[in-house]
Amino acid sequence: MLPVDFIVQLRNLLPSDRLLTDPVDCYTYAYDNSRKIFPPAAVAFPVTAEEVQAIVALCNDHCVPLTPRGRGTGTSGGSLPEQGGVALSLERMLRVISVDPANRVIVAEPGVLNQSIQEAAKPHGFFWPPDPSSAAYSSIGGNLATSAGGPHAVKYGTTRDHVLGLRAVTGAGKFIKTGCYTTKGVVGYDLTRLLVGSEGTLAVITEATLKLTPLPQARSGLTAHYRDARSCASAIVRIMALPETPSALEFLDAGALNLIRGRFPDMVPADTGAMLMIEVDGPSRYISALSASIREACRNTGLILVEEVADAATLWLARKTLSPLLRDIAPKKINEDIVVPVSALPEFLEELAQLTSRYGIANVNFGHAGNGNIHVNLLVNPDAGDEMSRAEKCLNEMFDLVIRLNGTLSGEHGVGSEKRAYVSKEIDSTTLVLMKDIKRVFDPRNILNPGKLFPG
Amino acid sequence: MLPVDFIVQLRNLLPSDRLLTDPVDCYTYAYDNSRKIFPPAAVAFPVTAEEVQAIVALCNDHCVPLTPRGRGTGTSGGSLPEQGGVALSLERMLRVISVDPANRVIVAEPGVLNQSIQEAAKPHGFFWPPDPSSAAYSSIGGNLATSAGGPHAVKYGTTRDHVLGLRAVTGAGKFIKTGCYTTKGVVGYDLTRLLVGSEGTLAVITEATLKLTPLPQARSGLTAHYRDARSCASAIVRIMALPETPSALEFLDAGALNLIRGRFPDMVPADTGAMLMIEVDGPSRYISALSASIREACRNTGLILVEEVADAATLWLARKTLSPLLRDIAPKKINEDIVVPVSALPEFLEELAQLTSRYGIANVNFGHAGNGNIHVNLLVNPDAGDEMSRAEKCLNEMFDLVIRLNGTLSGEHGVGSEKRAYVSKEIDSTTLVLMKDIKRVFDPRNILNPGKLFPG
Repeated sequence: MLPVDFIVQLRNLLPSDRLLTDPVDCYTYAYDNSRKIFPPAAVAFPVTAEEVQAIVALCNDHCVPLTPRGRGTGTSGGSLPEQGGVALSLERMLRVISVDPANRVIVAEPGVLNQSIQEAAKPHGFFWPPDPSSAAYSSIGGNLATSAGGPHAVKYGTTRDHVLGLRAVTGAGKFIKTGCYTTKGVVGYDLTRLLVGSEGTLAVITEATLKLTPLPQARSGLTAHYRDARSCASAIVRIMALPETPSALEFLDAGALNLIRGRFPDMVPADTGAMLMIEVDGPSRYISALSASIREACRNTGLILVEEVADAATLWLARKTLSPLLRDIAPKKINEDIVVPVSALPEFLEELAQLTSRYGIANVNFGHAGNGNIHVNLLVNPDAGDEMSRAEKCLNEMFDLVIRLNGTLSGEHGVGSEKRAYVSKEIDSTTLVLMKDIKRVFDPRNILNPGKLFPG
Repeated sequence: MLPVDFIVQLRNLLPSDRLLTDPVDCYTYAYDNSRKIFPPAAVAFPVTAEEVQAIVALCNDHCVPLTPRGRGTGTSGGSLPEQGGVALSLERMLRVISVDPANRVIVAEPGVLNQSIQEAAKPHGFFWPPDPSSAAYSSIGGNLATSAGGPHAVKYGTTRDHVLGLRAVTGAGKFIKTGCYTTKGVVGYDLTRLLVGSEGTLAVITEATLKLTPLPQARSGLTAHYRDARSCASAIVRIMALPETPSALEFLDAGALNLIRGRFPDMVPADTGAMLMIEVDGPSRYISALSASIREACRNTGLILVEEVADAATLWLARKTLSPLLRDIAPKKINEDIVVPVSALPEFLEELAQLTSRYGIANVNFGHAGNGNIHVNLLVNPDAGDEMSRAEKCLNEMFDLVIRLNGTLSGEHGVGSEKRAYVSKEIDSTTLVLMKDIKRVFDPRNILNPGKLFPG
């Protein structure tokens, strides 16, 4: 419940069509793709940085939790108002402020969709590399909050590599400006990348200066079919040791392939036990040589077939349907996005198979193999005996395995509330204390997305 | 003067051949390429992270200033012990801990030279992109402290784009570990990039996990000669609007060309008033098409000649000699490395010419034009009347111009002590207070490189 005087003051800051307080309306902002439910007591829709500042300052004055939110496509619960309070929806801050091809820069407000940035950049021969599978629906504010990646990160990097500067409002309600408008700049601390990936716990981004990348002249697709995951994983290691970097290198295990077969019956041969979807891009004159070099690295005794893909669009569509398809086959999926060094992928997949078999948990694995970033999905029926507790034990051991292999718990989804319990496996206590102290500098009353990102 | 009990304890931490306290010995560590002189009271040479930690903790206990130092090639005074105390020379932490081509990673201690990293990576087909002109002599610790760039940053980015994780000791004497070993990772705040570019004011880096990049198959060089700076600057804008990015795009003005003519009489024709040195790299099959496309963009009414360079090495040698040559022609050079958006370069150079002419200050300009990063050198004789005070006024107006054009005061040299007085032109007071608060979190007693980076 929000204090009455707080509500009165909040109503003074925004017109009635940009503030929800009716619980029925607020419920729409209670969930994201983590499938958890935490209804806010109010939802505010600012349209200017000044409104954002006024709302944050008010929440700070009254110690009311405030959770910034883009389009709610995150999978870790990062945008859910777990402690109630106000959901700050940035979805109406939709201005593309400037498109500047001469300097390869776009400046935009946080609510602008990733897709809209691509559409603004494309006529000038540029694109913005972050490409989460939600790109058509997710906002750049959300992409920045999680340092979103996607399949092309193997060649182009993630969000933090493609942002030059930010304007933001700290938890204390102060305007700050970070970074610069140019591709070089070393004056002061790099607060830009401190905010990127901070999951709305430090400041609310109100404007982002994004760095554009030239569109490749040509693209080409390959699929490589393997008898089993082991031979497939060893091919990944060989491909990533080449000087030529593919623009995407996606792995699909047997479970993932079965899901695709259910939806697209003729797409994957029956004897394929694991598959790579590979994209190369670059100059037109070079694309066939690049493709040939990667095909060569695909070869090993487990390879069944490697071929050029005529219809790459359908293939990527199939890949994109995997997450929703998983929802259909199990009441609950525990959806992780661990990363291990590429050379450790064979060992990881082997040990993961042993783990899930030991605990009797069905699982489906696929993902951005070129970064060692695997979406591990444990499929669970919470109502079936001790299945949930077995899955949790399995998950815990899997995270230990990831850390032992020098990996990280999350490559792109973020900690949110979902992975909070495991953060201490990766980050030592001294470094965690330092991070909490930094949070206090930005947000002294802990109003911004409280409870997220840190272990409980 | 250091307290006696502090000296006694410091001697207990290090063998005598790794600690200097004699003022004559210490003087060697009193200067860097800023040509300022600040002798430390002691110089410590740790060889392990544990020794670094013990020294930092001791300084913290006694509130003794501690200034980390690589090879002293910086130009902004960042490594000088301005407030005395201990110089912490990392030059003996020289281990390349691992070279891991399968994961495109090198792990190394801070004293390892940039050049040694290149030599370790090259046999595997990789390189580490940061390439300051000091690469043969500067350490990666120093490169990380300033987020060093260099001519190839136009295509490959700067140091902050090529580091995955760090181990460090905070000013409070605590070990921390930041980032990860993989190319993706979003668990916790990005402390890696907060430390990169922080000029030794937050923590002492003891180990760096560096991301390698595949070596290009082929390189090609071009020079483009222009009648004047104006036509040359407009060509830069056209080149950078192409989807093909050159791997280097260096600008030399008339003053820089005259310096080169003095040393290499036949290198530059007499009527060339400004010049571009361009490098392209990429797949062998594509290099000539890439080169042709850039040649085309070079053409305008001011172009005298654009040609392939047979002997690129000599050309780059000439470029590298510019900084030392400048020392010979003026008793003092005020050496800046401002950045403006590429599209603003023509306006910047024009207004700079007016400014220097109005104040009667000789100047020489060259640098990384593809990033809009120009090394502006004001040549001054401090003993000649009011020349120094005119130069300072000129400098102040130049910085105002840079900020008005949406640029930044430093692209790669850092603030150090040299640019401290101007930082408030670029960073607003709220953001500066936040940065100081962050410094306090890492270094509560302000012992690490005190006085640097922030306005006085």
